[in-house]
Amino acid sequence: MRDTVAALADWGTTAFRLWLVAADGLVLEERRTDEGLLSAQSLGFASILQSHLAAMGASERLPVMICGMAGARQGWLEAPYVPSPAGFEAILAGAVRVPDALREIRIVPGVAQGDAAAPDVMRGEETQLAGIANLRREGRTIVCMPGTHSKWVEVRDGTLASFRTWMTGELFSVLSRHSILRHSIGEAPAGASETDVAFLAWCEEGLAHPAETAALLFRIRASSLLHDLSPEHASAALSGLLIGAEVATARRQFDAGAGELLLVASGRMADLYGRALSLAGIAVRTLDADVAVRDGLTQAARRFGMLEAAS
Amino acid sequence: MRDTVAALADWGTTAFRLWLVAADGLVLEERRTDEGLLSAQSLGFASILQSHLAAMGASERLPVMICGMAGARQGWLEAPYVPSPAGFEAILAGAVRVPDALREIRIVPGVAQGDAAAPDVMRGEETQLAGIANLRREGRTIVCMPGTHSKWVEVRDGTLASFRTWMTGELFSVLSRHSILRHSIGEAPAGASETDVAFLAWCEEGLAHPAETAALLFRIRASSLLHDLSPEHASAALSGLLIGAEVATARRQFDAGAGELLLVASGRMADLYGRALSLAGIAVRTLDADVAVRDGLTQAARRFGMLEAAS
Repeated sequence: MRDTVAALADWGTTAFRLWLVAADGLVLEERRTDEGLLSAQSLGFASILQSHLAAMGASERLPVMICGMAGARQGWLEAPYVPSPAGFEAILAGAVRVPDALREIRIVPGVAQGDAAAPDVMRGEETQLAGIANLRREGRTIVCMPGTHSKWVEVRDGTLASFRTWMTGELFSVLSRHSILRHSIGEAPAGASETDVAFLAWCEEGLAHPAETAALLFRIRASSLLHDLSPEHASAALSGLLIGAEVATARRQFDAGAGELLLVASGRMADLYGRALSLAGIAVRTLDADVAVRDGLTQAARRFGMLEAAS
Repeated sequence: MRDTVAALADWGTTAFRLWLVAADGLVLEERRTDEGLLSAQSLGFASILQSHLAAMGASERLPVMICGMAGARQGWLEAPYVPSPAGFEAILAGAVRVPDALREIRIVPGVAQGDAAAPDVMRGEETQLAGIANLRREGRTIVCMPGTHSKWVEVRDGTLASFRTWMTGELFSVLSRHSILRHSIGEAPAGASETDVAFLAWCEEGLAHPAETAALLFRIRASSLLHDLSPEHASAALSGLLIGAEVATARRQFDAGAGELLLVASGRMADLYGRALSLAGIAVRTLDADVAVRDGLTQAARRFGMLEAAS
């Protein structure tokens, strides 16, 4: 049996994931909870991390590498943004150490695009990108990273060159729960599947008419009033419309039709975006987002001597 | 002193307005409360109306003409939609009578665009339109009616020909209160003025790039993180962006640049949309929405003999 030598954590807004790893990076144990930033602000970051590590039998000296919202100003310890364009090595090297902790705990910084005309920020995605070996090579790759705040990133010759955020996931969540669309969607807000007729039809609307989103949203409501659109279909329609509009505008901005696009996503998001990108005629290679973030954290842990250097 | 001969009520989703009028339509007394559809569903429509009429000293036989959400399926009594295209006379003639009431109480129906490709609905705006004398003449007029669910309407030769809804006001409300933008906007969600630098700058963004709304929304957040955008400016930015995007897409759909546009709005909404339309280079004539709805209700009341026929 192998020894645990470090812990890796992805601390997002709503989710917390923790891995215990061996010296070569192999995962020995995993935990997933909903103790994201929002819970941690009330329960305390240190005590959440400590309770899980103790329950997993980790030593008090086990070092921990963290990425995500734990490094935000309203998080555990602010890990100041690295300005873009940024090399992945520079990003990982900026991991700040939490003071006054017995163990070494470090948080990977986010990346900020300070450009007055197009300010933008990310926290967590930079670590996923740093975990993808192909992106360290020469050449240009466009990466689509779906989520609450979807990121589209241009990586050029191993450098995070520029990026832009679409509020797609949050729009879905907020509109399905708090707008008049809640009467159309009811209790079935996340049921879309990439083969849904409604998902596909509304995704094509979004792809064709991204500027009309605020009007097409109300058309979902009218369709349920006048044409008995079911709650499941209304939910799929909302998902398809928002994802379609994102893909339509992002592809234009990033000239994503030109080469192959890298989709970094997991589970349902990978399916839905895969289908939307395919509808848009964009060739896609998909990488699992969970694997990417763990690989990025592994790189960061190696950088600070928490793991063996890569062979 | 003149006698009260009828009451008129505009019963919206969040607001209730009641007027007592003389035989010639002159307003003798007015009440405004927040007892809209949402309150009325729990307190009861009949009892809210009765309590205000009693407090205003109205007789038990005083007839009442109502428009708005009181006629929705989830309202007081469903006033089935009149299909568009619809003449204003046909709409007003469809006012349904509330049964089992001592007094005559009628509710003006909404209008539905059943067209499978562009389903849409309105309740309340049809009454405002019916109150505008100019729209009963020959010719084509495009009408912009800002609100929670903004309507753009094409009126042709006295007929409500077609219309479309933008969820602009609701997007502002939901995003400023429930999305990550609440951290940027804080407690100042409705402070925009049409002369705000932030309102104007973001309105121009919305006008120029309506397809990018979901990305520009996050840029407001990034601007407050990276460039210290103040809560007041963030609120004005959100308002400007959403209104700009609406105007950009609606003008295209309704070919609104061609002639004069009629803006039916009151107060701040009239100011903000007036400025946005002017930025878009669209010539505008403005009519007060409060006056329009009262005039429409007056027409409906006359139609059912509650008031004197027009001289």
